[in-house]
Amino acid sequence: MPASAPRKRSTSRRPSSAPVGNAIIGQSGGPTAVINQSLVGIIEAAASQASIEKVFGARHGVAGILADDLVRLDTQSARTLERVALTPAAALGSVRKKVTRDECLAMFETFRRRNVHYLFYIGGNDSAETANILLECAREEKHPIRVIHVPKTIDNDLQVTDHCPGYGSAAKFVAQAFMGDNLDNRSLQGIKVNVVMGRHAGFLTAAAALGRYHEDDGPHLVYVPEVSFNTRRFVADVKRVYKRLGRCLIAVSEGIHDAKGVTVAESLVADAERDSHGNVQLSGSGSLGDHLAGLIKTALPGVRVRADTFGYLQRSFAGCFSATDASEARRVGRDAVGFALKHKGGTVVLKRKPGTRYGVTTALAPLKKVAKFTKVMPRSYINTAGNDVTPKFFKYASPLAGPLHVVGRLRGM
Amino acid sequence: MPASAPRKRSTSRRPSSAPVGNAIIGQSGGPTAVINQSLVGIIEAAASQASIEKVFGARHGVAGILADDLVRLDTQSARTLERVALTPAAALGSVRKKVTRDECLAMFETFRRRNVHYLFYIGGNDSAETANILLECAREEKHPIRVIHVPKTIDNDLQVTDHCPGYGSAAKFVAQAFMGDNLDNRSLQGIKVNVVMGRHAGFLTAAAALGRYHEDDGPHLVYVPEVSFNTRRFVADVKRVYKRLGRCLIAVSEGIHDAKGVTVAESLVADAERDSHGNVQLSGSGSLGDHLAGLIKTALPGVRVRADTFGYLQRSFAGCFSATDASEARRVGRDAVGFALKHKGGTVVLKRKPGTRYGVTTALAPLKKVAKFTKVMPRSYINTAGNDVTPKFFKYASPLAGPLHVVGRLRGM
Repeated sequence: MPASAPRKRSTSRRPSSAPVGNAIIGQSGGPTAVINQSLVGIIEAAASQASIEKVFGARHGVAGILADDLVRLDTQSARTLERVALTPAAALGSVRKKVTRDECLAMFETFRRRNVHYLFYIGGNDSAETANILLECAREEKHPIRVIHVPKTIDNDLQVTDHCPGYGSAAKFVAQAFMGDNLDNRSLQGIKVNVVMGRHAGFLTAAAALGRYHEDDGPHLVYVPEVSFNTRRFVADVKRVYKRLGRCLIAVSEGIHDAKGVTVAESLVADAERDSHGNVQLSGSGSLGDHLAGLIKTALPGVRVRADTFGYLQRSFAGCFSATDASEARRVGRDAVGFALKHKGGTVVLKRKPGTRYGVTTALAPLKKVAKFTKVMPRSYINTAGNDVTPKFFKYASPLAGPLHVVGRLRGM
Repeated sequence: MPASAPRKRSTSRRPSSAPVGNAIIGQSGGPTAVINQSLVGIIEAAASQASIEKVFGARHGVAGILADDLVRLDTQSARTLERVALTPAAALGSVRKKVTRDECLAMFETFRRRNVHYLFYIGGNDSAETANILLECAREEKHPIRVIHVPKTIDNDLQVTDHCPGYGSAAKFVAQAFMGDNLDNRSLQGIKVNVVMGRHAGFLTAAAALGRYHEDDGPHLVYVPEVSFNTRRFVADVKRVYKRLGRCLIAVSEGIHDAKGVTVAESLVADAERDSHGNVQLSGSGSLGDHLAGLIKTALPGVRVRADTFGYLQRSFAGCFSATDASEARRVGRDAVGFALKHKGGTVVLKRKPGTRYGVTTALAPLKKVAKFTKVMPRSYINTAGNDVTPKFFKYASPLAGPLHVVGRLRGM
């Protein structure tokens, strides 16, 4: 979907309630493969609205607003915007920062100085919390700023929305990585553990199963944070699969935890790093995978056991995205502008159309319904044993990841 | 390049020296994204040669020949072959096994029973060694088997040939992973270490640089096994880049070693695992990346440091391959058949045509020139400081990886 040239048109009617002024766009939290589609969607739609004059980008989200560190977006060329839309990771720079009341007041200063009436904040649930704090503060201070949260996350853990832009592309990456690794594992045998991102929600780890085609295709075991992880059961599961197939491919969420809620990853490090939202660092380390591989090596001596941690590739790999996801990310950006003209604030959500053919509509939901909360997978997406996904999950996630690379198998192999 | 239907044609003239009989194809060593292109290339070319009757595939390389565990390949449908060609990882199953003289004699039994006169063995330098042992044994025993080694490896470490099929696709994967991770690192700042495969040769790690476009694009530091790794220099390099850019992206070969040749990865594990060729297990563990991240965290307290180990994704990811690599992999397979009709044995090599436009021809080289030996990067591909690649490397590797995903940057960012 190419970006149309963002020239100002005065044809659209300005709703009587919409103030005339400038807009700021910020990006926040972990990047995705399509977060810049939403950015370009906002720029495009703002260009055709008379109520929105200049469009600024804040460098590194709220940090850029606080420092008045802005870049003009409405004057970027269509060619640049087209390329940026296809570029992974936040083009404006991102940030992980919870704002205080004083910082909100400082941001209002930037808004006043720059005549900004519209803020579009692209991010996950921590970013929705930031947007909500800012909107609450604006209400109290009777500041006119309108705040629209534009959703993105590879974790797919936002409330209200059917799914999040960013998830489909990450799901496709994870599914194709497992398709390849399943063939690698079938080719050289042994046991392989792959650790996938997902702190509380298992949607992305579950996507590992989307590329299964033959009965013996892996991942043969899938562990998500929605079910407590039990080391003894895990080892028994692996032994059983290995006995049956002579190999075993395993998908594990980085956020798996014991019955008390202590993550296995956290239990491996003495001084866990935390960000300002209180999240423990789980990614960017191979220790969980190595720990699980160690458990298996002890239980099955002499068997070839390997572990990989997918890490940041799953959210930023250049050139692997879901076309459906890219188009929806663009759309939530475009539609965010329409919502901003009619509402004081909110978060854009996707609603799945009923019927067999996949399709979505957009709507605006209150920020407080999304801020801070985390959506996890319904139990019906996970099998009774807690070590695999169900057909219901496939029905939910397959259209989001879109068509996967087609692989073949020789007859007789 | 679709597979043509592998129907037997009797139009081609049989060279007087070529025996009439069946062929076996085996795959060996670590899989690649295009190893099955070579497999299909052999099947296609054999189908048009009157000297070659049935074509068998050996399950898991020499293990399948020893166990007479074969599958018919000349009767597979064109549709199946087309799909298999685009499928990563060894479609016949792979093996890591050095053969003894007794095993060679046992394999001759399978050849006799199955009337096999041609063996095509697709693999790296360990597989070339296996092929060479078998060919030497055949000479001594006056056994008529012809043995052609068809090269594949993501490491690009085979002698004689300009480059190896499999490398270009892995290079593209690594380059695009770094392109995305560079944007991720630019977006969230901090220091990131990525560990790339490569035991002795740094070609694949060096490919991390192929996607650099802007002056500040990472990887900012590249460490390969061709240069001894010095921890103090490493930390000083990282500090310098971090001071300049506020971030740093680092590419490190899994095989980096100290001046005495002890790999850093090996020094971290008490009981290193070895295969039957004597290779230590370096992949499938995150410990090297975590160790290097730990060094940086100590030197730069409070800075966000993360490490990822690319692992098996770089050799088996479904749907990411270089078109040039795929086409050359097919070609070495096809041409191997022609060489088998004229020669007793050898390894297929690629020669780069002189001139500015990239192109290759194929030739047959003696197995003993490739078996066991490892090619490493010429020193001219590495900068004087030993922490980056040179323009000469770009000239060499860019055509192999082919066009990369195009990314964009906003003006002013």
